[in-house]
Amino acid sequence: MLRIVICAATILGSILAQEPRGHVSIILLGATGDLAKKYLWQGLFQLYLDEAGDGHSFSFHGAALTRPEQGQLLMAQALEKLSCPSDMLPERCAQLKGQFLQLSQYRQLWTAEDYVTLSKDIEARLQQEGLQESGRIFYFSVPAFAYAEIAQHINSSCRPGPGAWLRVVLEKPFGHDRRSAQELSKELGSFFREEEMYRVDHYLGKQAVAQILPFRDRNWKALDRLWNRHHVDRVEIVMKETVDAEGRTSFYEEYGVIRDVIQNHLTEILTYVAMELPRNLSNPEELLRSKLRTFRALRSLEKGSAVLGQYQAYNEQVQRELQKPAGYMSLTPTFAGVLLQIDNLRWEGVPFILMSGKALDERVGYVRVVFKNRAYCTQSESHRDSGKSQCQPRQIIFYIGHGTLGSPAVLVSRNLFKPSLPPGSWQEIQEMPTLHLFGQQLADFHAYRPRQERDAYSVLISHIFHRRKDFFITTENLLASWDVWTPLLDSIAQEVPRQYPGGTSNEHLLDFEQEGSQVVFVQREVEQLVSGPGPMPRDFSVLQAKFRQSPLVSAWPEELIARLASDIEVAAERAVKRSGEFHLAFSGGASPVALFQRLATRHYSFPWGHTHLWLVDERCVPLTDPESNFQGLHVHLLQHVRVPYCNIHPMPVHLHRRLCVEEDQGAELYAKEISALVTNRSFDLVLLGVGTDGHTASLFPHSPSGLGGEKLVVFTESPAKPHQRMSLSLPLINRAKEVAVLVMGKRKRDIALQVSRVGHEPEKWPISGVLPASGQLVWYMDYEAFLG
Amino acid sequence: MLRIVICAATILGSILAQEPRGHVSIILLGATGDLAKKYLWQGLFQLYLDEAGDGHSFSFHGAALTRPEQGQLLMAQALEKLSCPSDMLPERCAQLKGQFLQLSQYRQLWTAEDYVTLSKDIEARLQQEGLQESGRIFYFSVPAFAYAEIAQHINSSCRPGPGAWLRVVLEKPFGHDRRSAQELSKELGSFFREEEMYRVDHYLGKQAVAQILPFRDRNWKALDRLWNRHHVDRVEIVMKETVDAEGRTSFYEEYGVIRDVIQNHLTEILTYVAMELPRNLSNPEELLRSKLRTFRALRSLEKGSAVLGQYQAYNEQVQRELQKPAGYMSLTPTFAGVLLQIDNLRWEGVPFILMSGKALDERVGYVRVVFKNRAYCTQSESHRDSGKSQCQPRQIIFYIGHGTLGSPAVLVSRNLFKPSLPPGSWQEIQEMPTLHLFGQQLADFHAYRPRQERDAYSVLISHIFHRRKDFFITTENLLASWDVWTPLLDSIAQEVPRQYPGGTSNEHLLDFEQEGSQVVFVQREVEQLVSGPGPMPRDFSVLQAKFRQSPLVSAWPEELIARLASDIEVAAERAVKRSGEFHLAFSGGASPVALFQRLATRHYSFPWGHTHLWLVDERCVPLTDPESNFQGLHVHLLQHVRVPYCNIHPMPVHLHRRLCVEEDQGAELYAKEISALVTNRSFDLVLLGVGTDGHTASLFPHSPSGLGGEKLVVFTESPAKPHQRMSLSLPLINRAKEVAVLVMGKRKRDIALQVSRVGHEPEKWPISGVLPASGQLVWYMDYEAFLG
Repeated sequence: MLRIVICAATILGSILAQEPRGHVSIILLGATGDLAKKYLWQGLFQLYLDEAGDGHSFSFHGAALTRPEQGQLLMAQALEKLSCPSDMLPERCAQLKGQFLQLSQYRQLWTAEDYVTLSKDIEARLQQEGLQESGRIFYFSVPAFAYAEIAQHINSSCRPGPGAWLRVVLEKPFGHDRRSAQELSKELGSFFREEEMYRVDHYLGKQAVAQILPFRDRNWKALDRLWNRHHVDRVEIVMKETVDAEGRTSFYEEYGVIRDVIQNHLTEILTYVAMELPRNLSNPEELLRSKLRTFRALRSLEKGSAVLGQYQAYNEQVQRELQKPAGYMSLTPTFAGVLLQIDNLRWEGVPFILMSGKALDERVGYVRVVFKNRAYCTQSESHRDSGKSQCQPRQIIFYIGHGTLGSPAVLVSRNLFKPSLPPGSWQEIQEMPTLHLFGQQLADFHAYRPRQERDAYSVLISHIFHRRKDFFITTENLLASWDVWTPLLDSIAQEVPRQYPGGTSNEHLLDFEQEGSQVVFVQREVEQLVSGPGPMPRDFSVLQAKFRQSPLVSAWPEELIARLASDIEVAAERAVKRSGEFHLAFSGGASPVALFQRLATRHYSFPWGHTHLWLVDERCVPLTDPESNFQGLHVHLLQHVRVPYCNIHPMPVHLHRRLCVEEDQGAELYAKEISALVTNRSFDLVLLGVGTDGHTASLFPHSPSGLGGEKLVVFTESPAKPHQRMSLSLPLINRAKEVAVLVMGKRKRDIALQVSRVGHEPEKWPISGVLPASGQLVWYMDYEAFLG
Repeated sequence: MLRIVICAATILGSILAQEPRGHVSIILLGATGDLAKKYLWQGLFQLYLDEAGDGHSFSFHGAALTRPEQGQLLMAQALEKLSCPSDMLPERCAQLKGQFLQLSQYRQLWTAEDYVTLSKDIEARLQQEGLQESGRIFYFSVPAFAYAEIAQHINSSCRPGPGAWLRVVLEKPFGHDRRSAQELSKELGSFFREEEMYRVDHYLGKQAVAQILPFRDRNWKALDRLWNRHHVDRVEIVMKETVDAEGRTSFYEEYGVIRDVIQNHLTEILTYVAMELPRNLSNPEELLRSKLRTFRALRSLEKGSAVLGQYQAYNEQVQRELQKPAGYMSLTPTFAGVLLQIDNLRWEGVPFILMSGKALDERVGYVRVVFKNRAYCTQSESHRDSGKSQCQPRQIIFYIGHGTLGSPAVLVSRNLFKPSLPPGSWQEIQEMPTLHLFGQQLADFHAYRPRQERDAYSVLISHIFHRRKDFFITTENLLASWDVWTPLLDSIAQEVPRQYPGGTSNEHLLDFEQEGSQVVFVQREVEQLVSGPGPMPRDFSVLQAKFRQSPLVSAWPEELIARLASDIEVAAERAVKRSGEFHLAFSGGASPVALFQRLATRHYSFPWGHTHLWLVDERCVPLTDPESNFQGLHVHLLQHVRVPYCNIHPMPVHLHRRLCVEEDQGAELYAKEISALVTNRSFDLVLLGVGTDGHTASLFPHSPSGLGGEKLVVFTESPAKPHQRMSLSLPLINRAKEVAVLVMGKRKRDIALQVSRVGHEPEKWPISGVLPASGQLVWYMDYEAFLG
């Protein structure tokens, strides 16, 4: 359908033009939609007010699928409500508004021809007016499914001529996970160059958020000492809503709170707080590089990184709005609290808490940096000056808006330092001194708010115009963010969120706390109280029985690892009490990783200072190779606990800068070390696994090495790569006081069954040769390995 | 002077005696003194009330130097004021008091004969009444200088016969430092056996203090998880006084606040909080062993461990009371805040703050255990239930007395757990719910107080009677405490304490905070404001000049180390930025220890994760030997920072379980490791020292090994033990990008002078051969080494 657009009188040109700087055409796609009506037209008007005097000329094209007559009407209604800054005289406002209306026209964009016509019209007019074209901005305020088609039309028909730029502005959602975001990016990338795309996260335009980096830069001298793990106790990045998802469930049911708010807005804010300050804030490339480095330093998220909630009315709203059957049970979270950790020198160990939810007790958004307090105040509380005392909270808050303050603000505890903010745009808050927030009175803060509140979209539209790409989400940035979030989203897809009543009735139901590297609800057992689900894995008691005449512990994986870890701690305490040291030999492989992690994070009083760590077996690779068993032990355990350097005994597979050469006598060296340090060569505990072929340690079927004889440590050949291995021998293993064999996962079902039936046949099934002479053997098998 | 004591009518025997359990004679030395009048007679009366019904018979001998007539009069005045428990009927009280008075007599004890007579009288009466003797208690309420003479008399004349016990009760001070305490103990030990001595620390009898261990035991289930470094944020042990030392300066001027209160009372309390709970609380030996282990785990204190103050009027009081000249300036602290740290698995990293002072704003004593808070509360503060919310403070307080509560108490935040206290003797506090203390309302605590307040001396006298030695200070315990405190006391002997006005006027003047392993006043520059002293070491700028044509940095030791540490950090950052890693080679010896400590505690953003640590030289001893350079590096640096295991490169002096055997090729091995990992064999920074003989690294004068040639690493011979060494060679050192030579102390003055004059004579002066080919050499010398 080709339709001729009725053009308004051509007033291309600027109002207060000084020297002509070229013409900019702005095409707002979805010009009659909600976002356009609420924010975008106003933002464009503001751009006009800010920039038209600076030499540029503008034209504004509102576009939609609606026929011209109706579209014009709808657009006129939207433009009606445009407002001027409060300090502008009404007459001047009316004049400027009139000019803006004359520069704005409605245009139906439906078919390919419509786009061709648009471009031709722009060109014709430029020629007619003798104007140089600066560039064109296409603002996509349309549903994401329409992106590809529009992008194709723009690319093929609407690119400006040589020397002029094209910018396309995209609104979220930018995909649903890593894969879909990549696909979408790839598709858009086939039409636009990276520098042409401006992905909007409107939070980055909010005044308090946009102030984070300038604030850090401007107050660098005071902050430099404080802005690190030694002084920051925690960072909270929070966006609470009182509204729920009613009326929006078709969108919400697909996205949920993490995709809607946390993966984008709150994570972007996190990078502003955590990133290394670039030398030059006004250099977008440098800033984006630094931001990307922060994304890459984020520790990957897992199931335990988040607590999830869903307000009680949500499921019924979904059923009603999406016509779901009566038994439908939505698992979409409407509340999430997430713990993020950053693996770099500045932030290691500092919890970053990201929290958002619907149907909460208040509407508020803030970033709160809480500093550690290591002061002792000698005066009693009643005699302290709350503004000066170092025993009062010390915090910096970027208050995004709403809440008790009701406006954006930056708050710095008076006992920290007096910050500097740009005096032209920010001013001190004088009123409401007794207002209580974040555990302090407002008077205890140096508190600032913008002289003039500016809407995020106005700010961002200005940044698009000024090519400040650092206020937008680059493709790399987007994918890096999904890299962080996708594993969590995948792992919680089947999680049942905790139900909450909504509003103040939530009480302490959603409070959560850090436990090691995870977060858990403070009120733990509430699931059972609220909905009484069936038995959970943890309700099953650990099964204790016999396997090959030795004790068998069997449970679900998590319980099994918990039990094994605490059995090891008990053994450690016993050994340290008896002899002052605990000699523990660990196998490599995947199964012990969960054990290492549990020991590293949960076992607070494990006597690491008295523990010697040995390896049961090792691959012939450098110790720093990711394939090395030692490396696994190092990454998952040693880095997190304090074992004295001289108590760590990696296998010497890499002597004289070469791997497992017989004449370097690595095996003999390790044997000597064991003989010298381990009384009677009897380890206190040896942890073994079982391979699907029945191998254990690095002792393989049909290979006699290490199954008997005098040697304590041997070289062996594995059927799998890397073939060369070093291993404790079976006779040495059988001298141990305790041997634990850990068998986990469905893959081990067949070998577990097989091993349960065979006798003492170590040549065929090396594991069957494990039989401590005077020690205790215990099998730890999860239900999948044991029951299939 | 021999005087015959007029005896009261003999009513030896018990009032309500069931079966006779023998007779106990209690001799109160100093019976007419202040302590006796205020507490001890009342404590003895209470003992009589508690125990006389239980079969024992008693006699009480008040003794002093005063003549009998006057002594009797004074004693009668003291006994007049004895009071009964509040729930006792007045008639019953009068009756019991009468009985007690009949059993009590005054006795002058002056000469040796007096003691002989006393003993004879006791024996005569026992025989006369046909009583079996249980034992004798001598309570020393006399000045410490009199101890020895009295002890000698008792030992030679007053020991009871076979089968009966002797107990002597001693009051502090127990010495002035480690040496004097040991002398005093030795002297007393020549008269009494250890089990006969009861050293009183009356704080251990205070009800809230005495409740610490029973509380920990009774609430073990709830506390076990919490009572460790993972959950406890800090522990404050505080005794604040409003009074000053006026009238007592003759004692105070000699002792000061640390000896008066902190070394004894507060440190004893610390051990109760921190010690491992013995299995059986009622076994005094087990308890004392555990307490002693805690003392031994206390990290030794140094100058920076304390902040000191002196109230402004103190000096004038001393001048007046002690007739000091006008210019006299007392350095005795009347206020101290001390940071203690415990090096064991349970408490590592938890600050124990001990604080006491005179002329403060309130009188109060408490132990406050503050727990970490890792909760995020989703409700706004106004909607939180302060008793349940995990975001409110979580703390346990043993309130010793006075302050706003006005009585002993045990407080447990309601969001922790509901504690159990012995219901017979402790009851919940119901009143004053809105009383504000420790950042919470009283209603937010489970709060308990004793049903009946008991004076500490009554409690302790009962424990003496029941032989509960765990409530007293054993000799081992006493000396262990002085071991901790003496180094601090010695180091602060010449420190000028901060002056404070006293009372509420102190404002924030005495607030202090932890900085690394030290404490500092929060208001740093106040010394200058108050008294304007001369220039301090830190006011001198670091001197920069040339030494042997290379840059020289010279300063006072502390500044020198600070400067070197930050220069190393700058080098590290530069290297990591350039190549991703920093290769740093450290020398052994004493000088680098301060550097290691500074790097470990002050350099928050040092890129340890990217640093490789090498040794410049090593002694041929096992790596775990205290003599090993590596061990010094490990203890002072590696234990405190996170260098990846594979980045640590100790010298292989201990291969094949033997030390520095040429054929084990340790030197070649280290050379290969360097060649493989360090680009161009050029270390980023090498730290050297200089010996008084001009040696550097382990390259010694008149010994050619390592001074030239191709070898990177060599074995050498030191003139000092242990003779065998491994060392980087001079050619390898000279390949480094930076070489820093650290020279400190008066001992180095001569060699520094010598070296400044010699040319390039490495055979004679190995240090003169240090001349990096293309790198930078910098000399770091303190003023003592440089200026002599």
